[in-house]
Amino acid sequence: MIGPLEDLVEALCRLPTIGRKSAWRLALYLMEQPESESLHLANMLTNARTRLCHCKRCFNYSENELCAICSSTARDGGCICVVEKPVDVFAIERGGRYRGLYHILGGVLAPLNGITVDKLRIGELAARIRTETPGELIIALGGSADAETTALYLARLFRDEPLRITRLARGLPAGMELEFADQITLSQALNERTDIHYGKTNE
Amino acid sequence: MIGPLEDLVEALCRLPTIGRKSAWRLALYLMEQPESESLHLANMLTNARTRLCHCKRCFNYSENELCAICSSTARDGGCICVVEKPVDVFAIERGGRYRGLYHILGGVLAPLNGITVDKLRIGELAARIRTETPGELIIALGGSADAETTALYLARLFRDEPLRITRLARGLPAGMELEFADQITLSQALNERTDIHYGKTNE
Repeated sequence: MIGPLEDLVEALCRLPTIGRKSAWRLALYLMEQPESESLHLANMLTNARTRLCHCKRCFNYSENELCAICSSTARDGGCICVVEKPVDVFAIERGGRYRGLYHILGGVLAPLNGITVDKLRIGELAARIRTETPGELIIALGGSADAETTALYLARLFRDEPLRITRLARGLPAGMELEFADQITLSQALNERTDIHYGKTNE
Repeated sequence: MIGPLEDLVEALCRLPTIGRKSAWRLALYLMEQPESESLHLANMLTNARTRLCHCKRCFNYSENELCAICSSTARDGGCICVVEKPVDVFAIERGGRYRGLYHILGGVLAPLNGITVDKLRIGELAARIRTETPGELIIALGGSADAETTALYLARLFRDEPLRITRLARGLPAGMELEFADQITLSQALNERTDIHYGKTNE
């Protein structure tokens, strides 16, 4: 009946986690906002899709052939942090502590779901290790079983390379009460317990 | 760092019920889709905002001065169905049973939230009743307390007009088990119980 509005609802419906009711609510919200606000969203979407490509080195989204991190002279090229997806880079960058480079794997191994080695950017990572010869590879994948498997796979694949392979520490998240921690987290926190050095005079 | 992608996330964040995490997930989904698919959403949004205005009669969204329903000769001009917002029109039209016209009120009365009589299209409704002289006004607002108040307000406002004022039936929704119905719904269903006429020979 009302063509353009229904078209917008249809287009919003195709987004993940947006059902028909949410799509209608979003569409009506977008109709009720100031026009400039709604058109801004459309422009930002068009902009992101037309201006961004993949960095040819780390495969993060980038406006240029090399992303801002890969082309920065302030970053430590001797360390590559392997992450699953671009948003993970933002999560680590938000901390502001890591000064090395990244490599976006594009997922984690899940053979049952068809995510096999050739679907991820593992060959590209191997090529980078050969040409860039980094001193350390930090495997910063998530805590899922698939992510752990992928981390082990990568560690095994590159075990003969002259480089240190590390992964993120497992343990209690900041602010977590012991009583609410699950058993696996608690076991990992126990297994990977660290020494406390405080005020020893002979250090 | 990555300008256009962060701009897109910011723009998505401003949508209702979309937090930063959802915005990131949507943005990355939109980046991973075929480009035509993502640009389609941007175009549909631009399209809806630039092509749709309000029907000057019922205030639904419309591409023309009068919407498809108001300008149709197949609809019964003798009945006006008062709804809160455009999506309600779609809900009723989906049923395909109602053949009259609509009037979009633009909300329900909620004086504590600043939604007073002058904020809604009540004056416009009064003008339509005077000029169009419909035989029936169906008040199809929701079941909230504010909606009930608004329905009573409208019924009182137009009580001296020569027209029948009705509201949607209250009762058990289709498929609802009695044991799961709340007390208010059950009371309303009891209060508004209807006679069953089945096979009486004298009818």
